[in-house]
Amino acid sequence: MLTDGPEAAVSDSALAQRWSDARRRMAATGAVGVLLSGGADLAYLSGYQAMPLERITAFVARLDGGTDERASLLIPALEAARVQQRPDVFSLVPWGDTDDPVSLIAEMLPSQGDVLVSDDLWALHALGLQRMSPELNLLPVNQTLGGLRAIKSRSEREALVAVGGLADAVARQLQDGQIPLVGRSEADIADDIAQRLVAAGHNSVEFVIVASGPNAASPHHHPGSRIVQADEIVLCDFGGRYNGFCSDTTRCVYTGSAPAEVSDAYTVLQAAQEAAFQAARPGRALADVDLAARNVISEAGYGEHFIHRTGHGIGTDVHEHPYVTETNRALVEAGHAFSIEPGIYLEGKWGMRLEDIVVIEPDGARRCNNSDHTLREVLPHPPATQPSEGL
Amino acid sequence: MLTDGPEAAVSDSALAQRWSDARRRMAATGAVGVLLSGGADLAYLSGYQAMPLERITAFVARLDGGTDERASLLIPALEAARVQQRPDVFSLVPWGDTDDPVSLIAEMLPSQGDVLVSDDLWALHALGLQRMSPELNLLPVNQTLGGLRAIKSRSEREALVAVGGLADAVARQLQDGQIPLVGRSEADIADDIAQRLVAAGHNSVEFVIVASGPNAASPHHHPGSRIVQADEIVLCDFGGRYNGFCSDTTRCVYTGSAPAEVSDAYTVLQAAQEAAFQAARPGRALADVDLAARNVISEAGYGEHFIHRTGHGIGTDVHEHPYVTETNRALVEAGHAFSIEPGIYLEGKWGMRLEDIVVIEPDGARRCNNSDHTLREVLPHPPATQPSEGL
Repeated sequence: MLTDGPEAAVSDSALAQRWSDARRRMAATGAVGVLLSGGADLAYLSGYQAMPLERITAFVARLDGGTDERASLLIPALEAARVQQRPDVFSLVPWGDTDDPVSLIAEMLPSQGDVLVSDDLWALHALGLQRMSPELNLLPVNQTLGGLRAIKSRSEREALVAVGGLADAVARQLQDGQIPLVGRSEADIADDIAQRLVAAGHNSVEFVIVASGPNAASPHHHPGSRIVQADEIVLCDFGGRYNGFCSDTTRCVYTGSAPAEVSDAYTVLQAAQEAAFQAARPGRALADVDLAARNVISEAGYGEHFIHRTGHGIGTDVHEHPYVTETNRALVEAGHAFSIEPGIYLEGKWGMRLEDIVVIEPDGARRCNNSDHTLREVLPHPPATQPSEGL
Repeated sequence: MLTDGPEAAVSDSALAQRWSDARRRMAATGAVGVLLSGGADLAYLSGYQAMPLERITAFVARLDGGTDERASLLIPALEAARVQQRPDVFSLVPWGDTDDPVSLIAEMLPSQGDVLVSDDLWALHALGLQRMSPELNLLPVNQTLGGLRAIKSRSEREALVAVGGLADAVARQLQDGQIPLVGRSEADIADDIAQRLVAAGHNSVEFVIVASGPNAASPHHHPGSRIVQADEIVLCDFGGRYNGFCSDTTRCVYTGSAPAEVSDAYTVLQAAQEAAFQAARPGRALADVDLAARNVISEAGYGEHFIHRTGHGIGTDVHEHPYVTETNRALVEAGHAFSIEPGIYLEGKWGMRLEDIVVIEPDGARRCNNSDHTLREVLPHPPATQPSEGL
């Protein structure tokens, strides 16, 4: 988190090409302007990762013609020195603590027509702009920019494969019993995994879930003080960032010999994950990928216990387009990258999830995560052999 | 970050009282509903810190009378188990990945009138709601709730004093030369400080800025690969979270004997910080606090080099109301908590900032940070004495 900027390094020429493509696509919707703030959309077009604080950073451009096709990057004055200048894409407009940045944005945009805004623009700023320019019609940019960001170039797909390998290294340590579990708290194990993610080569840790025993039935469990016991599931879901791209993988281990109920359910889970993987091909609907997994789980009688979508897109953001839900009829496209992570959750008893990131090549899906897909049994470390006395 | 929930522990009865007060204040504005999403506003009224992901968590309530004064906490189904139930304040409404949460929100609110929304509600959701209920008038909640959150109770003020003491422990290590500087990269020093913040007792690290030499002229510098040299300023600005409340302090040290230009400027900076501290009393304007510091710096000829406001409120959020700017004519009130952090920045040469958090008691400001306010000179560690040969 502290050792490296989170930006994906993008050359000036690649960024200029990206802006030119995005600009044309957005203008083709009939929009007269674009306003991106905050997160991955802004970073995608500016190469700059804004600080997530209350002072707005905004990428603003008119799309209604004119001679200057460059955007403006409105930046808090005290953060201007952080920005790598990209003169082909934007001019830098620092604003001071007594300026009204929303007025500056309103002056940069036309006063009427459609303006595309990023999903995560703060309502405070959206409402302020709407008040100043009541003839503007603000629309979500994700219909165009989300689709553009969702298609990863070859080098971006390779970056996702590379960062997936770093996460796999930690998954294998977990599966090989190198990470002590029984007798430790979930929080301690999560800290240990976080350190291992960095040691494996990530620049930063994005998240670590460690959920043991009945806690594993809570898909987004916050690792806490519960001490891991023998003979239970430990679900570990973790990811970090390397060269701007995110990893995200889930593996479960069993601290003992798994009973039939658990190993049978896991066999279903693994089959469901494999079925979704096989369905993830260009031209199929994203919903088909979800349903491929969901049907396997439902047919085994666990349908009501798979309580979330099958996956989410991933790239410079941990969650982004496309979303793999049972209602998303958009098509899988070559260049997509998303998670395939079915789960089965029995409240009060146990939970399990199996997650790989895949990238979509013209001929099918390619896994970024290749650690063992089975439910590995991790036995407590045997006590060290006592040295023989008297020798 | 991983070891503890970021929530401030609040008892059920205290939370119910808080909701009752806030509800009355918000209803008094004539608003018919409230919609909080995401950050500290939602946590303040629900006791729950939502995950900052794309699935919305929302605190929704009608304010236009009726028998049930409780709110609804709309939560992604897979995160429902994270929430501590607060039946006096809200009922939990899990939504699934094929539901449209904005429709659910629209159904919970009246179809016309003013609805107060949190600053950081995503534009995606605000615009979606506006489309479904075009007669709603969305307004920022910060005018009411921001003011309410800005007034800290005695126990909240004590929590800020306590967490400030944890940051001071690290500041003193820096000032006493216990943190090696010369020859290390800013990023390494930042990691070291992060570990020390946790070792001192913080539950998590919020941020660490280490800016050396000319980099110190960039107030929000991102610690990087630059190696700290002898005879330069090292500006360190850091904070963490303990029991839900945030610390934030800045100290500068000089890796050698500071030249007159630097020590003279620092004398001005320290006087400016003290002047603002003296001005921070109930009944004075927040702008007067800013101007007290700014005037000292301007009179010494550095006015154009103080490029940001004097401070920001702090509590369960690192930055919140009130903001200490030269144009904020709102009054300092007993219970306020904010930073006093003037700075002087000479581009290409050096920068300096001195920051304490203060809480406002009825008779004046009280510092939460009490490490040395002077520019401490931190000499490189002398080389270890060579062991005498031949002994």
